[in-house]
Amino acid sequence: MIVVIRPHTPPDQVEAVIREISALGYTPNPIRGEYQTVVAAIGDETTHASLESLNALPQVEQVLRVQKRFKLASRESRRTPTVVHAGGVEIGGDKFVLMAGPCSVESEEQLMATAHAVKAAGAVILRGGAYKPRTSPYEFQGLGPEGLRMLETARAETGLRIITEVLGERDVDLVAGTADILQIGARNAQNFQLLIACARSGKPVLLKRGLSMRVEEWLLAAEYLLAHGNPNVILCERGIRTFETYTRNTLDLAAVAIAKQESHLPVVVDPSQGCGRADLVKVLCRGAAAVGADGLLVEVHPNPAEALSDGQQQLDPAAFEDLVESLRPFVSAAGRTL
Amino acid sequence: MIVVIRPHTPPDQVEAVIREISALGYTPNPIRGEYQTVVAAIGDETTHASLESLNALPQVEQVLRVQKRFKLASRESRRTPTVVHAGGVEIGGDKFVLMAGPCSVESEEQLMATAHAVKAAGAVILRGGAYKPRTSPYEFQGLGPEGLRMLETARAETGLRIITEVLGERDVDLVAGTADILQIGARNAQNFQLLIACARSGKPVLLKRGLSMRVEEWLLAAEYLLAHGNPNVILCERGIRTFETYTRNTLDLAAVAIAKQESHLPVVVDPSQGCGRADLVKVLCRGAAAVGADGLLVEVHPNPAEALSDGQQQLDPAAFEDLVESLRPFVSAAGRTL
Amino acid sequence: MIVVIRPHTPPDQVEAVIREISALGYTPNPIRGEYQTVVAAIGDETTHASLESLNALPQVEQVLRVQKRFKLASRESRRTPTVVHAGGVEIGGDKFVLMAGPCSVESEEQLMATAHAVKAAGAVILRGGAYKPRTSPYEFQGLGPEGLRMLETARAETGLRIITEVLGERDVDLVAGTADILQIGARNAQNFQLLIACARSGKPVLLKRGLSMRVEEWLLAAEYLLAHGNPNVILCERGIRTFETYTRNTLDLAAVAIAKQESHLPVVVDPSQGCGRADLVKVLCRGAAAVGADGLLVEVHPNPAEALSDGQQQLDPAAFEDLVESLRPFVSAAGRTL
Amino acid sequence: MIVVIRPHTPPDQVEAVIREISALGYTPNPIRGEYQTVVAAIGDETTHASLESLNALPQVEQVLRVQKRFKLASRESRRTPTVVHAGGVEIGGDKFVLMAGPCSVESEEQLMATAHAVKAAGAVILRGGAYKPRTSPYEFQGLGPEGLRMLETARAETGLRIITEVLGERDVDLVAGTADILQIGARNAQNFQLLIACARSGKPVLLKRGLSMRVEEWLLAAEYLLAHGNPNVILCERGIRTFETYTRNTLDLAAVAIAKQESHLPVVVDPSQGCGRADLVKVLCRGAAAVGADGLLVEVHPNPAEALSDGQQQLDPAAFEDLVESLRPFVSAAGRTL
Repeated sequence: MIVVIRPHTPPDQVEAVIREISALGYTPNPIRGEYQTVVAAIGDETTHASLESLNALPQVEQVLRVQKRFKLASRESRRTPTVVHAGGVEIGGDKFVLMAGPCSVESEEQLMATAHAVKAAGAVILRGGAYKPRTSPYEFQGLGPEGLRMLETARAETGLRIITEVLGERDVDLVAGTADILQIGARNAQNFQLLIACARSGKPVLLKRGLSMRVEEWLLAAEYLLAHGNPNVILCERGIRTFETYTRNTLDLAAVAIAKQESHLPVVVDPSQGCGRADLVKVLCRGAAAVGADGLLVEVHPNPAEALSDGQQQLDPAAFEDLVESLRPFVSAAGRTL
Repeated sequence: MIVVIRPHTPPDQVEAVIREISALGYTPNPIRGEYQTVVAAIGDETTHASLESLNALPQVEQVLRVQKRFKLASRESRRTPTVVHAGGVEIGGDKFVLMAGPCSVESEEQLMATAHAVKAAGAVILRGGAYKPRTSPYEFQGLGPEGLRMLETARAETGLRIITEVLGERDVDLVAGTADILQIGARNAQNFQLLIACARSGKPVLLKRGLSMRVEEWLLAAEYLLAHGNPNVILCERGIRTFETYTRNTLDLAAVAIAKQESHLPVVVDPSQGCGRADLVKVLCRGAAAVGADGLLVEVHPNPAEALSDGQQQLDPAAFEDLVESLRPFVSAAGRTL
Repeated sequence: MIVVIRPHTPPDQVEAVIREISALGYTPNPIRGEYQTVVAAIGDETTHASLESLNALPQVEQVLRVQKRFKLASRESRRTPTVVHAGGVEIGGDKFVLMAGPCSVESEEQLMATAHAVKAAGAVILRGGAYKPRTSPYEFQGLGPEGLRMLETARAETGLRIITEVLGERDVDLVAGTADILQIGARNAQNFQLLIACARSGKPVLLKRGLSMRVEEWLLAAEYLLAHGNPNVILCERGIRTFETYTRNTLDLAAVAIAKQESHLPVVVDPSQGCGRADLVKVLCRGAAAVGADGLLVEVHPNPAEALSDGQQQLDPAAFEDLVESLRPFVSAAGRTL
Repeated sequence: MIVVIRPHTPPDQVEAVIREISALGYTPNPIRGEYQTVVAAIGDETTHASLESLNALPQVEQVLRVQKRFKLASRESRRTPTVVHAGGVEIGGDKFVLMAGPCSVESEEQLMATAHAVKAAGAVILRGGAYKPRTSPYEFQGLGPEGLRMLETARAETGLRIITEVLGERDVDLVAGTADILQIGARNAQNFQLLIACARSGKPVLLKRGLSMRVEEWLLAAEYLLAHGNPNVILCERGIRTFETYTRNTLDLAAVAIAKQESHLPVVVDPSQGCGRADLVKVLCRGAAAVGADGLLVEVHPNPAEALSDGQQQLDPAAFEDLVESLRPFVSAAGRTL
């Protein structure tokens, strides 16, 4: 780390900082500049205490971090891309993976109709929430275990693999009993107890980016999964919160490219959450394929206008089929197959 | 709700929207404007399904929500301010409440030194994390149950009440066994399973605002606590995430005033997290008192430069004592006592 | 507009709002809901005074706008896409337009080397700043009139058209004397006096989105250009300011799709400003083509490490050539030609 | 500056960076860490070219800036606070300064009524826009020169000093002929040509913080004014753009404290723009006084509901009088007089 000393600091106060750096286990290396002194502190920042606490000293102007904080998630720890295997489906390989299905599992009829439709259009994984994190306690909270059973039926009937969200530590075993991939939602992306419990389940985990997470923080949340023994992590960009109000979130497609560059993990995109408007989903899927995403997570519902959650961002089956067809040349341009 | 139809929509497609509004349980009331038609949908928005799903229809331009989504947290549900009682301390009453202590409980020695110091300066509640949510898995995660025991010792020795964070549903009973107030951190502010578990503990709950939570969403998270049977909720503004980098977060003091205006719940401010810099804490405490906060949550550590977490934002005991002294006239100007 | 009255408002105070709505020229249409009253105010919101001022009345809870605020920029005012003609080049037509060149014009040698290289790679328009808006007064501010002359020389030698930025009203005539397209930068995107002066120049104008502009505000800035008589407007998405720090800005590719959907104006993307990092430019160009952009504005410099401004985001000529080659299948997938 | 080299970079590529640092005029000082090499580049960052361009080299991971970029605005350049004198009024001295008046000058009657009222309540400076920057070209744009004459009349009648906004370079002389203080609005805060023209007018300048300006950028905009020869600069915090929608902007009161700490310039607060809601203005004025602001800029209108601009955030004279009375103890607690 680099500790920047304020200009005009007397030498004994510079020495005090240097002593503190040593006390915290780093080797201090002071450099006198024209205008102020900086102290390079040599040591492994991922195993030593952070020196950011030195900001508490009045003579310290700032502390700059040099080293990246994530290790197992980084390209340095693993040079080849990770391919996650989920019930026979590969995510992160040559094939561009389509995951699709309703926001919420609402009924067997609704789920089956959607499952058959998305399979026919090319999806290989069925999404659908049995447990729903809702902003208001008065909104539909999901069918719970009954929803899980419906997902199992859909898998048995269609052969689609299942991804579904887990909301709490206590539900991990139950949901992992059904799911091929556990989904951790944006609002839980820094619920570290849930991350650890999901890591231990042994199931592949799709980790959505939190609404206000920097890419580094997202990779550090993935690091929790990796450090607790689960190498099967899929990152999912789903939009961040900004000042823009036309869309519900701002889909950050650069973050997909960054995550691919900094990390070996596969990255998929959720354009439905990413914009919150059905009319933009198709074009954002193209963008996602173009920037190198490994797949998509798209919300599809037989009748979006009557959906119990987030109808405004769900496509009907015909629109999804059209989306997949129009997507083919972009997937191909990106060197992938659909 | 108000459903705005796109200009130039043929009458039969307007009718289709009107029928759908009826089907979803609202009474439609169409109004033909000069330029476009809007349909006012009459019904209670907190008990009926949201009409936002109608955005899925191509002829719908937007859906505007009229009614507020929170009920129990609102001023309409309770005209008089709520006073939360926690182990004999009132939060939300005439007295301005000082909660102070280390970011993390690190050792009995560290905790006792801090507890005695903050009590002498005027604090009535001791804060200190036994379970720490950390961005990186390699950072200090707290002492866990041992930390809880130290907090109990500190209460026994000083008489200070205890507030401490709970990270996961499974820890609620254990932490509630020690704490006078359960703290839900910013990263868990929409961990609804944790909210429900804390509500059921029966202990007062301090709910921090999430990093990217609108005030409405914060009050809806509080609504989860209230709707699950716990009326003893304290809101805590602790800064939101913005583009500014000088401070770690942007303390939103207007949100304190808004929360007091919209809701009957007490509101406290955490200036330490709110700016992430010890040198700004004192002045932000003044601002918090001035905008009507009911109290403060301030991080204090015997030796911030060697703190195991967030040293840069912790005050030493002398600085805290100075802060309290300088705060008195502002608390008094706000019509409160310290 | 929709004026929402607070619950439990006495009838005479509702009447007072209704009278005020009439006084401001709208026809009020009150609707009594189950919980509260709303008043639909009928009238053309783009020609009448905004009713948002009614928020000043204590019995008014909120005022919701129904109608879009931009007219000339909207799809309703013009159903077919606008194609801007700039010195023989069409922007917004079938051809995907490449604009490229250095951030700043630094010398004739630098500019000519870049111009020849970008032309060889497929660019048809040369960018280069003679006037540079810099965050600090101590940074290189551009060569001014001398830079304009170099741009003219480059045009004469290569046949490339010229786009260059104009910083102030007083420079419009001078810059318009050289430029084929006037560029209005992000920091001036709501400098309305500059917009009006550029509109009057008669030259096509490329309007960058401001760092914190909502799409609606961007289109309203374009509306200034259109309303002051200049139909030749090109929109340019260049990233917005968010909390993310890995990139300098967050490129909002959804905004490209929105601007194309809401407006008839051509939209190009500046990925160099959009991320501020040379290593992400290529992949973001693909994304831009995929979401339907009409072209790109890319920074290219013979030796980025020694550039006088923004070297970190400039490509060298070889990287630009590689970018163009790799872009072809994406442009083709989007139904355009390069 | 600190140039961070990627891990595992071969020595000759490290040497290439070191040579480039020398070529750009800095003295390189390489430090080999456990994990990667950093090069401290010694030299004055405010007079040398930025090394950020070195990010263009693939072996460079990041470039960290050590030194602050503003000089004349900094506490180091001037240890004592600047007191700006404007027509006999001191801003930045012991007295807390109240500036108040309508958002727009609408008529002589409206202006005079307001002027007399705000003077009676304690204001010493009259604000009022003759030139209005409006998001839409169809909104009221101000009375222009006629508005300036009305402001002169108000000054003659009441003795209040005048602050009014200047929108464009060409208007600076005209507006400076009337105003005691020139106001630069948030949307023009990085309109550098306007900053330079205002600096040269010789009149004191109030510089609003831009909607998405970091404090550093705000101080660098002030640096433009100072570096172009005008020492009479007043900073004005007026809220930044965030995701929160309850308020129009998020008032950043920490930024007031930061600006006072980093700079010697006086800082005032505009709570009207800062929240965009009349019902929050009073409490935010208290907060502003408490965090150390030197004064306030408050919008007051005889009849806000019929104001031609921003009625929702304007107070009527009675509310302003009440505000001033309730503010006294906070100003006094802050060690100032009203």
